[in-house]
Amino acid sequence: MAANKEIPYKIYLEESEMPRQWYNVRADMKNKPAPLLNPETLKPMTFDELRPVFCDELVKQELDDTDAYIDIPEEIQKFYKMYRPSPLVRAYCLEEKLQTPAKIYYKFEGNNTSGSHKLNSAIAQAYYAKQQGLKGVTTETGAGQWGTALSMACSYFGLDCQVYMVKVSYEQKPFRREVMRTYGAKVTPSPSDTTAVGRKILAEHPGTGGSLGCAISEAVEAATSQEGYRYVLGSVLSQVLLHQTVIGLETKTAMDKYGIVPDMIIGCAGGGSNLGGLISPFVGEMLRGERNYDIIAVEPASCPSLTRGKFVYDFCDTGHVCPLAKMYTLGSEFIPSPNHAGGLRYHGMSSILSQLYHDGYMTARSVEQTAVFEAAEQFARVEGILPAPESSHAIRVAIDEALKCKETGEEKTILFGLTGTGYFDMVAYEKYNNGQMTDYIPTDADLQAGFDRIPKFPGNEI
Amino acid sequence: MAANKEIPYKIYLEESEMPRQWYNVRADMKNKPAPLLNPETLKPMTFDELRPVFCDELVKQELDDTDAYIDIPEEIQKFYKMYRPSPLVRAYCLEEKLQTPAKIYYKFEGNNTSGSHKLNSAIAQAYYAKQQGLKGVTTETGAGQWGTALSMACSYFGLDCQVYMVKVSYEQKPFRREVMRTYGAKVTPSPSDTTAVGRKILAEHPGTGGSLGCAISEAVEAATSQEGYRYVLGSVLSQVLLHQTVIGLETKTAMDKYGIVPDMIIGCAGGGSNLGGLISPFVGEMLRGERNYDIIAVEPASCPSLTRGKFVYDFCDTGHVCPLAKMYTLGSEFIPSPNHAGGLRYHGMSSILSQLYHDGYMTARSVEQTAVFEAAEQFARVEGILPAPESSHAIRVAIDEALKCKETGEEKTILFGLTGTGYFDMVAYEKYNNGQMTDYIPTDADLQAGFDRIPKFPGNEI
Repeated sequence: MAANKEIPYKIYLEESEMPRQWYNVRADMKNKPAPLLNPETLKPMTFDELRPVFCDELVKQELDDTDAYIDIPEEIQKFYKMYRPSPLVRAYCLEEKLQTPAKIYYKFEGNNTSGSHKLNSAIAQAYYAKQQGLKGVTTETGAGQWGTALSMACSYFGLDCQVYMVKVSYEQKPFRREVMRTYGAKVTPSPSDTTAVGRKILAEHPGTGGSLGCAISEAVEAATSQEGYRYVLGSVLSQVLLHQTVIGLETKTAMDKYGIVPDMIIGCAGGGSNLGGLISPFVGEMLRGERNYDIIAVEPASCPSLTRGKFVYDFCDTGHVCPLAKMYTLGSEFIPSPNHAGGLRYHGMSSILSQLYHDGYMTARSVEQTAVFEAAEQFARVEGILPAPESSHAIRVAIDEALKCKETGEEKTILFGLTGTGYFDMVAYEKYNNGQMTDYIPTDADLQAGFDRIPKFPGNEI
Repeated sequence: MAANKEIPYKIYLEESEMPRQWYNVRADMKNKPAPLLNPETLKPMTFDELRPVFCDELVKQELDDTDAYIDIPEEIQKFYKMYRPSPLVRAYCLEEKLQTPAKIYYKFEGNNTSGSHKLNSAIAQAYYAKQQGLKGVTTETGAGQWGTALSMACSYFGLDCQVYMVKVSYEQKPFRREVMRTYGAKVTPSPSDTTAVGRKILAEHPGTGGSLGCAISEAVEAATSQEGYRYVLGSVLSQVLLHQTVIGLETKTAMDKYGIVPDMIIGCAGGGSNLGGLISPFVGEMLRGERNYDIIAVEPASCPSLTRGKFVYDFCDTGHVCPLAKMYTLGSEFIPSPNHAGGLRYHGMSSILSQLYHDGYMTARSVEQTAVFEAAEQFARVEGILPAPESSHAIRVAIDEALKCKETGEEKTILFGLTGTGYFDMVAYEKYNNGQMTDYIPTDADLQAGFDRIPKFPGNEI
């Protein structure tokens, strides 16, 4: 640990410094995240109940809350070397623009074709599927970041990849679809006539544009009805958060190398896997009583699961085919207003992050989308990277905090996660550029309608 | 120079190893590129004739064929540090896939928001404009890579940026347009009613989709008719090639550091600035008799300026407002078939590269676009990067050469330039994915029609 070295614009670790194990923060949590429940028995899901849906090794990771370190298989390490380590960037230009005494760093996960951190888990999930001798995997995708990442991972391992893409996105984001097809994935607009649940929905709602919940249901059915297939998911689950700790581990190593200690760590939170991955090694220090950090989850005001949701058991999916998870939730049937362009639309939150938030290890803040795009534009113009709308939530709060430092004169060190690039989000940018972007905050009544649909059972009253 | 170190997947230079000077290969050329000519007097363009159009410092660089090294101003070095050094990647996965004994490296210039190497020159040109106290710059853009890069550079220096974008691209590539607008550029579809030449063309050809030649004419008129503006160009000119030598200098330093000597250097060639930038330091060694490399320029079969063009004086632009340059050309009115989706549509070639090619320092090869997209897809699937169609021309030949090595058992070291990413080229990928891509090779008669329009004067017969 060498302090006072001159900090370069971008800190890249050597390959030899890259993590060889993921860090499982649950091992250090005194209050473990509550187990997934079988919605029929209301008992914790067992290994055997989960393995028809997920790969065996991933089920093990999902259920493991005691092993602090889990080896990253060599094949995954090899793939990580193709696009990692990702740079830890000192935002010198943004600091100068803001005239702030704060020191701002961001860990940039957008330098790969999937355009985001999603690839970190996609490659792990594809690897375990391949190891298990499976033919392929199924998944759903909305905006397409996850589907793209999974297509890349499957193409690398020669696995079949079937993506159910929300129909309205399939039609409105043809470029995302083509990237997936270029990587060999089969992309089906959902709802489709390829599954029973899809046909049922089509019969009931002809002409529907689909939803993430519907696409999940189709993907799960496709996985469980085909020999040699499993279903994979891009966020929310503890296994995904585990894989994403590669982000935080690299960040911590890079900061330690230069003797940098962040006062504040900021990340956007949808399902929570990127934020969880970034903060895990830092939260580990907090849990072990070694050090303290100010950790802030940022979510859209239009989908405020942490700041306005309930900490209860709820379905992970709108179609109610998945287990119940204890988490901060707006209700599995809550759907953000259609004017919301900024991503992070998930109704719930990783159960690990939910527990940490509940126990006071992090705070949360909600921001409105026009302010988010303002921050995105400001960042792009000085730092040169066009950020994804999701990532820009973190930028908004990082800028706000840096401006507070300007007022108070504090030289805080701010770290934030820049999860991806916005190349496929230009429709939202266009709206912003044309001054047509509007904000939306759900009323208490809107939220209550979502809460009313949360399953009620003894111990799960709101 | 340390040989036999283990070669990482990606070689990143330290900031302290980044170039502080560009290398002006003309200084080492015995046969200098022929000077630009004034089309009216047929005499070499002077500093005073060029300075109403270009910034003073850039005119100096354009005319300087004797200084081997030109300092990179500190402000530009600082900006380069935001997105450079770019990685030199060992294509381990591609080698494995091809089962070739060849060692393949690529220098990847797509890891910045402009998505390509264009930013290397855009930032330099914007800097000199700012230094000269100008208000802004004008330019044209077709597909939009150059316009995007220039918008970013101007935004960084607070310069006004006016981009004339070929109307058909403006309409078909709205996302490129929005990226430029996000960086604060004013983007006008060309032809427009904002210039005399635009109004004239609109009157003669109502409803036209425009062309690069027309957009250049509008941009030049806009620059010369507004106080405090100059015109900038993204390729072809010697100044642009000079700035792009940062690519080759980084590559050479990284290779020297690990004791790697390429046998073969491959790059795509449109206007020639990326290829010229990559090869300059290596060609310098050839020119000084120190070492030999096999250098290959790759161009589309549908726009074959090196392989089928004439080495004569011709206009740099279709609108004939620019000086004459001696280069390999298909005639300034040659336009590739509309079915050509792969970029590199320029009718001519950098006069530096043209001279080097004429003198036998490099060879050229033309490839058809379906084969180019095949290579792009193969590369994307194993190396994870979705390449721009332009860059994929180089991939095609790199793969062909690696497969030759497989047959012969030769362990050649192949280096190629991967100039950018294809995120905004998904319409072309979609065509390929749907099996609708076709090839086109101009007939001799097609080419003759272009040659016939090349200006004839004593010493410039074909």
